Amino acid sequence: MRIMVEQFFYPKSNAVIGATADPRKFGNAVTINLLENKNLESEIFPVNPKADTICGLKSYPTIVDIEKEVDLAILLVPAKAVPIVIDQCIEKKVKRIIVVSAGFAEINEEGRKIEQKMVKKAKDANIRVIGPNCVGLMNLDIGMNASFVLTPLKGTTSIVSQSGSFAAACLYEMWWQGLGFSKFANLGNMADVNLTDLLDYFKNDNSTSVVCVYLENVVDGRAFYIKMKEVAKEKPTVILKGGRTSAGMKSASSHTGSMATDYTSLKAAIKQSGATLCESLNDYITAIKAFSFLPVPEGKRIGVLTNSGGSAVLLSDTAEELGMKLAEFTDDFKQKINPFVIPLVKKVNPLDMIAGANGESFYQVTKAMLEDSNVDIVAPCCVIPTFLEMQPDEHFKGVIRAWNETQRKKPILPVFMSGFLIEEIKKIAKEEKVPIFFSPREAAFAAKVLMERKKLLQKYD
Amino acid sequence: MRIMVEQFFYPKSNAVIGATADPRKFGNAVTINLLENKNLESEIFPVNPKADTICGLKSYPTIVDIEKEVDLAILLVPAKAVPIVIDQCIEKKVKRIIVVSAGFAEINEEGRKIEQKMVKKAKDANIRVIGPNCVGLMNLDIGMNASFVLTPLKGTTSIVSQSGSFAAACLYEMWWQGLGFSKFANLGNMADVNLTDLLDYFKNDNSTSVVCVYLENVVDGRAFYIKMKEVAKEKPTVILKGGRTSAGMKSASSHTGSMATDYTSLKAAIKQSGATLCESLNDYITAIKAFSFLPVPEGKRIGVLTNSGGSAVLLSDTAEELGMKLAEFTDDFKQKINPFVIPLVKKVNPLDMIAGANGESFYQVTKAMLEDSNVDIVAPCCVIPTFLEMQPDEHFKGVIRAWNETQRKKPILPVFMSGFLIEEIKKIAKEEKVPIFFSPREAAFAAKVLMERKKLLQKYD
Repeated sequence: MRIMVEQFFYPKSNAVIGATADPRKFGNAVTINLLENKNLESEIFPVNPKADTICGLKSYPTIVDIEKEVDLAILLVPAKAVPIVIDQCIEKKVKRIIVVSAGFAEINEEGRKIEQKMVKKAKDANIRVIGPNCVGLMNLDIGMNASFVLTPLKGTTSIVSQSGSFAAACLYEMWWQGLGFSKFANLGNMADVNLTDLLDYFKNDNSTSVVCVYLENVVDGRAFYIKMKEVAKEKPTVILKGGRTSAGMKSASSHTGSMATDYTSLKAAIKQSGATLCESLNDYITAIKAFSFLPVPEGKRIGVLTNSGGSAVLLSDTAEELGMKLAEFTDDFKQKINPFVIPLVKKVNPLDMIAGANGESFYQVTKAMLEDSNVDIVAPCCVIPTFLEMQPDEHFKGVIRAWNETQRKKPILPVFMSGFLIEEIKKIAKEEKVPIFFSPREAAFAAKVLMERKKLLQKYD
Repeated sequence: MRIMVEQFFYPKSNAVIGATADPRKFGNAVTINLLENKNLESEIFPVNPKADTICGLKSYPTIVDIEKEVDLAILLVPAKAVPIVIDQCIEKKVKRIIVVSAGFAEINEEGRKIEQKMVKKAKDANIRVIGPNCVGLMNLDIGMNASFVLTPLKGTTSIVSQSGSFAAACLYEMWWQGLGFSKFANLGNMADVNLTDLLDYFKNDNSTSVVCVYLENVVDGRAFYIKMKEVAKEKPTVILKGGRTSAGMKSASSHTGSMATDYTSLKAAIKQSGATLCESLNDYITAIKAFSFLPVPEGKRIGVLTNSGGSAVLLSDTAEELGMKLAEFTDDFKQKINPFVIPLVKKVNPLDMIAGANGESFYQVTKAMLEDSNVDIVAPCCVIPTFLEMQPDEHFKGVIRAWNETQRKKPILPVFMSGFLIEEIKKIAKEEKVPIFFSPREAAFAAKVLMERKKLLQKYD
């Protein structure tokens, strides 16, 4: 199974069938994205009978006309031409095919039959197929973007998604938050290669440290469950299911041409597997962010420091609602912070240092809290101040310094809430590889998923 | 009660006691904010025995030394000096006092006693008090910022909050999303003036169209419930409660010096009153956004159009989970959109126009959907495309045009998910006064609160 998927991600040569110089066509977007990396080692062959050259490369009338071997064929021709092109791919003995073209099982029963027939033909010839009805895939480890969406940041998260555009939305959102990808695969109608195949691949892929899944239906529930459990044991595995309700299931069936899997049983299976279940885009990105940047905590005792009492109250609420516990600070901690807080400050959790607390207070108290043996997770919760000559970034810088000086051993959840004031903070977060959370709820959800991961790891210990 | 609060928001003159030229002090921030509006008609008197002039104004040793009448005294002196200054305010016969200074009931029992005593004295002299332990208040209708946080956009939302910094976080977040304030009051420890007083004032205030509350404890539950019900009947009233759990309640008590009100009963009361209950910052801002920009729908049938199948599936899920229903499109609608969608597009709800849909399609289909008699709410759900030479803002512009051409009669929920690509969209949203939602869940939550408001209005009809 590994080599099966590997050949999609590491092709020595690609043919883009339906390549074009016309920027109003998807065949152009994919060609341009493949050519974007000048050092890409895979060779690229545009195929289009109506052109001699495309984007500076020689164009071939059909894939069969290419003199060299072709590993991966990417199809962007109209649906009715796809079966013919697949026959040509078989003749050419390509190894793998991605059908970007839509208009199959997601349209009607006839489309489904055509889809099944052409995929069977390919499989009989030992060729595996991703799609149809997808945006393509990426392997940023070799700088290959074989899709029509933008090349995101390079990182160590890999995603397999049934929805292409939703995966793109995640990708852009993660980009904006400084999170990057290793591999990206959109499976569309999943006529052949499925979620389980990709999970298996990501499990063994050394460049992947966090695995993300967006799914609507599961082909073989048992196989998927077993694989999900195996992957979750090795790597944080974040799962979002579309089609949880009857309305969503109905939508899913016109989206990827398949009946959405019932959520109740799948939800139980995901939880039992040890994967992280999310039910919104926000939770999904938050979980990915937490797993990308933070170690797992030793326990569920959270310590909160703040310059905003109300925000800390809300964080305490959500943390308890999600299964955390407010830590009881040690006397040692209380003594240590004495010089750095004004006498008004009560030494309880959350530690409310009131609006005047500056970057130095945040640094000292965060550090002491990270060193407190009663605290497993530290959440510095800050409304960026605009008064007392404080710099908008000094609190965050103090937090980072404290985290670095304690070797980033405990997870830290910096919450920064300040609308447009956040831009500078975000820049620093990206550079320093420190997460920021935009609301008390985000931080509490991050704490929850990290704690659940810790429990899983303990179970396997 | 109305005049009682009115005199806080419309003082003819303000004394800032503890005013200073030292930018490292809150007394400076408040003075600067008051002076920021050169046309402010209220006179400002800095009080500080150690200075002759402050920020270009004559400084007075004590409030008693001011020759003219003082309506509002804003106290920023250390806690131990506050009772003395209150005595001076009584001598001066000021009308209203805001105690910004912290260090009272939120600290210990002794602080509570001092707080109660000084407030009683003031009340006996017919002077009402906001605070202590607060950031102050604003009335942007007259351009007055009597607080130490930044002056936000002017708008028609008014907020009363027990937490100052959390209110500031909301304010900055709303600013970033193009939403403005009319009046802002942070009550802090709420030793005298309370939530019910402000609700009553906002109910009758013509500049206020949306009322927001952040609360931790309620002084007189019955009075609060009755007032909340009265206000909610007149205006959308959005409520977030801090201290829902035992952890949160404990935090709240060190925050504003009062035992947080039990959530179970309060939650029931809020729901029964017709106010909109939120449980996170995100929901809170989403509800305010919905009420600020959108009319209430006639029913709960939502129509979704999209270029991103997966996102529409998630929106359908959350919409159903929150009580909406996917609309069944009329045949008339299906016919109308025929020329504007490719043949692949199935005419079902959500209407998935696939990745190639452009601004013109979004315009035409949004308009037809707004005109469909089977649809009460329209949600155009878009992952901003980066291909086919499409402009990143053309879909949103199409949606706005459709909404304008249908006289903005039905609520519209534009969902745009694209990380950093959103900036241009946000600018347009602000200019055109159209909301954008950053995730399917946000849009579904907005639909829910609008529908609940419609039901309330029907009940009173």
